[in-house]
Amino acid sequence: VKDVQSLIDGRGVKIVRVGVKHVKMPLSVLVKGGGSRRVLGDISLSVDLPHHFKGTHMSRFLEVLEEWGEKLVSSREIESLLEDLRRRLRADRAELWLKFTYFIPGFSPVSQLPGSPGYPSEFHGILDGGNYSFVLGVDVPVMTLCPCSKEISLRGAHTQRAVIRARIRYFPDTFVWIEDLVSSLESLGSSPIYSNFSIDDERRITESSYDTPRFVEDVLRDAVLLLRSDGRIFWFEVECESQESIHNHSAFAWQEEQVPG
Amino acid sequence: VKDVQSLIDGRGVKIVRVGVKHVKMPLSVLVKGGGSRRVLGDISLSVDLPHHFKGTHMSRFLEVLEEWGEKLVSSREIESLLEDLRRRLRADRAELWLKFTYFIPGFSPVSQLPGSPGYPSEFHGILDGGNYSFVLGVDVPVMTLCPCSKEISLRGAHTQRAVIRARIRYFPDTFVWIEDLVSSLESLGSSPIYSNFSIDDERRITESSYDTPRFVEDVLRDAVLLLRSDGRIFWFEVECESQESIHNHSAFAWQEEQVPG
Amino acid sequence: VKDVQSLIDGRGVKIVRVGVKHVKMPLSVLVKGGGSRRVLGDISLSVDLPHHFKGTHMSRFLEVLEEWGEKLVSSREIESLLEDLRRRLRADRAELWLKFTYFIPGFSPVSQLPGSPGYPSEFHGILDGGNYSFVLGVDVPVMTLCPCSKEISLRGAHTQRAVIRARIRYFPDTFVWIEDLVSSLESLGSSPIYSNFSIDDERRITESSYDTPRFVEDVLRDAVLLLRSDGRIFWFEVECESQESIHNHSAFAWQEEQVPG
Amino acid sequence: VKDVQSLIDGRGVKIVRVGVKHVKMPLSVLVKGGGSRRVLGDISLSVDLPHHFKGTHMSRFLEVLEEWGEKLVSSREIESLLEDLRRRLRADRAELWLKFTYFIPGFSPVSQLPGSPGYPSEFHGILDGGNYSFVLGVDVPVMTLCPCSKEISLRGAHTQRAVIRARIRYFPDTFVWIEDLVSSLESLGSSPIYSNFSIDDERRITESSYDTPRFVEDVLRDAVLLLRSDGRIFWFEVECESQESIHNHSAFAWQEEQVPG
Repeated sequence: VKDVQSLIDGRGVKIVRVGVKHVKMPLSVLVKGGGSRRVLGDISLSVDLPHHFKGTHMSRFLEVLEEWGEKLVSSREIESLLEDLRRRLRADRAELWLKFTYFIPGFSPVSQLPGSPGYPSEFHGILDGGNYSFVLGVDVPVMTLCPCSKEISLRGAHTQRAVIRARIRYFPDTFVWIEDLVSSLESLGSSPIYSNFSIDDERRITESSYDTPRFVEDVLRDAVLLLRSDGRIFWFEVECESQESIHNHSAFAWQEEQVPG
Repeated sequence: VKDVQSLIDGRGVKIVRVGVKHVKMPLSVLVKGGGSRRVLGDISLSVDLPHHFKGTHMSRFLEVLEEWGEKLVSSREIESLLEDLRRRLRADRAELWLKFTYFIPGFSPVSQLPGSPGYPSEFHGILDGGNYSFVLGVDVPVMTLCPCSKEISLRGAHTQRAVIRARIRYFPDTFVWIEDLVSSLESLGSSPIYSNFSIDDERRITESSYDTPRFVEDVLRDAVLLLRSDGRIFWFEVECESQESIHNHSAFAWQEEQVPG
Repeated sequence: VKDVQSLIDGRGVKIVRVGVKHVKMPLSVLVKGGGSRRVLGDISLSVDLPHHFKGTHMSRFLEVLEEWGEKLVSSREIESLLEDLRRRLRADRAELWLKFTYFIPGFSPVSQLPGSPGYPSEFHGILDGGNYSFVLGVDVPVMTLCPCSKEISLRGAHTQRAVIRARIRYFPDTFVWIEDLVSSLESLGSSPIYSNFSIDDERRITESSYDTPRFVEDVLRDAVLLLRSDGRIFWFEVECESQESIHNHSAFAWQEEQVPG
Repeated sequence: VKDVQSLIDGRGVKIVRVGVKHVKMPLSVLVKGGGSRRVLGDISLSVDLPHHFKGTHMSRFLEVLEEWGEKLVSSREIESLLEDLRRRLRADRAELWLKFTYFIPGFSPVSQLPGSPGYPSEFHGILDGGNYSFVLGVDVPVMTLCPCSKEISLRGAHTQRAVIRARIRYFPDTFVWIEDLVSSLESLGSSPIYSNFSIDDERRITESSYDTPRFVEDVLRDAVLLLRSDGRIFWFEVECESQESIHNHSAFAWQEEQVPG
């Protein structure tokens, strides 16, 4: 049988990314404090392709993922999967994107009722020649209360769901847990959100968010200051999008920064 | 060339719906007060298929739609398209679903600033033998302010975006405009939403929604009473879904009723 | 503190469904052959509300779900959760919808390479007074090859992804595994789909699908015959939607049947 | 009334983007050959915010858009809207993103039946100080037939829907029509797709796609060569994603290039 993919290609175009997208599979992720948690992964995987080959061998990606399914996913583990992929496909560059929802157990503020909100999370690993880089991402829902609405009105102030989306890169000899990133970011809105609470919690949340009005600009600035001041982080991108309850559109603020060494 | 679709099928299974889904095309819809408006339609179209035919002729659906593109879409016009489709495909039953966003010009409550929010809308026509029935649907975003949060707290109360989704059937000799359905339903939340407003509007909206707290149950009950009392309507389905700003999930209430003749 | 939800409501409207939507949480589902599998659930939960109560207690839903998180989800287990919910909220009727992706290990047809495609699945339980009913749903992707394209062309025939969506109700003293439903349905297209395969598998799949051309009408009719002939099933709804590779829209066929006792 | 947004902010953080997202409104776009077409726009709009201001005035964005609604949207028009926005909000930088579906009338290859497929399109304008840059994007669906499947099989070859996503920047004194970009790109798959056709068209499409097998790598390379050789274009990003009919995931290839001056 002829190996069509290995045929010579005469067009002279090297391709940066060739691979598979949206492979769904369950995986295990390390949990802060020990142990692991099963997550549902949406995985994309690519390599570069030298100009003289007609195609890549797409089934190798699935082989590699199939073998990988039983391991714990981490930055380290992604690096070794990308090494393996580079070797098998004789590529210079290999990349992986993994999206999943990560559930973190927590408690309501007054009654301490248990609940585990889910946070959309993302790992992105790039192995280019000998250089490995890793991006950690998480989307943190919060509640925001509008400072302008509060200031100008005799009573009340509109609130809404907002999402803080952070992507960070940290130094290779350090480590940032999803749990810690979520817990720092969710304190930046007018209130965190909860999956379950009592009437005492609801009162506390209502009053404390009324006492802490926040524009998207406020949330973003505090997120920038927080991420700048974390010695482990050398690059970040952060956005706050507020799904305005009085509009059918969103307000947003966005920033990307390289932290000066 | 052989007509594969007209071959005899021996399995003896009559099919209720065979057709096309998600055909995108621009169309014109009648506007209350005169004139028409271009909308972007997502159209599905089906007929039934007698047990002895192997397949329907899918290209006929597109022919019919292509010819239809220049006309104004209305309940009447959908009936005549379905008549045409039944004839061309020798079917007993024909159905059309049309989804589109309908923009309605309006003004902010105090400063009278103009704005045109878009409302996801739907027409569904069924021609079965000689009987024609038509369903009109619209999704109306509103703001809700939680009565419990207000009652138990010394200050503030959480608000959020909610959507009232209504589907109605009205008597053939009557007519209901999307504009009227939207304007009745959007008065049932704690406040309508606006695409644009001034600081004076924001104050009015904040205070009046604080004065009008509404659970999803409240919105639903008032919607039920409103739809029951409209002599033109003989069936409806209505839902209110509130995207809670303090949770990452929604609260909802739902009802379907046949209005007694 | 005042219990706003328990206030008397004077509007006289009983509500059929009041509850929460889109609560995300991980759960465990029984696996055919023994053991269980973690899935990521999207859960909605409702009760009815007597006309004289102003609101339901939304936090009870979360309490019930939180306690339930560690158990195995099954039709039986959903019935007892709904019993519990009815009791706690003094309701007549309680309903649960659970959506999740279910991964089923399998092998490629020739080389026997392992792979675990994910199938969007759904449980819907209704407890109304003393009557419990349960609906099992699954979406099964297949490949279809167009009979018309094959018949009229000297070479080739277009193929595409299609999805068979089945919802079934079976008699209370019987049981239907997702695994069995998937495996019967995925044999009805021109070919099943695979997450991983070799060149020998690809040849087999290409040739056998060319030898088995199938319209959406063919897939639907065979699905109807299959479901009708299963003595355990007394109601079903089934659809085949084919994402035509030569069009930007889909072709579909749909049927709902009550199997005569 | 106090202007909360104009308060002094002491955190010292300049923000790159503050604005609104997902404002929906109908707009008109110029058509090649003359005239214009109504489209449904999804608009985002932002400015930068100096470190000393607490917030931007979100309602100004809506004012600007409301006034703009009647004009024809083009690269030139977006530049002048951004100039206006910069002036009103005293900002250095302003950006606009506009997404819409653009319908292009065409004909089937043999029978010349009319049809108007819709192409997801995008304009992105950035005005930074005195520098204006503009990105044009379009997603073009095509059909691909797998070269490997054809080569190894005695009969048939699997085909599927693929999408070519291109984003380009062209020199300010030149112009690229969406119509021309679509028509160049859709010739790069195994076949264009059509909304409507006859049996003669279907035969031609089936046979000619069988004669033109294309990997995602092939489509991408030809797209790269096409875009490189267009003297008007100085930057592009292009992806081909193929929704494999034999898998439940996609294959893809991606490239970004600055064309050397």
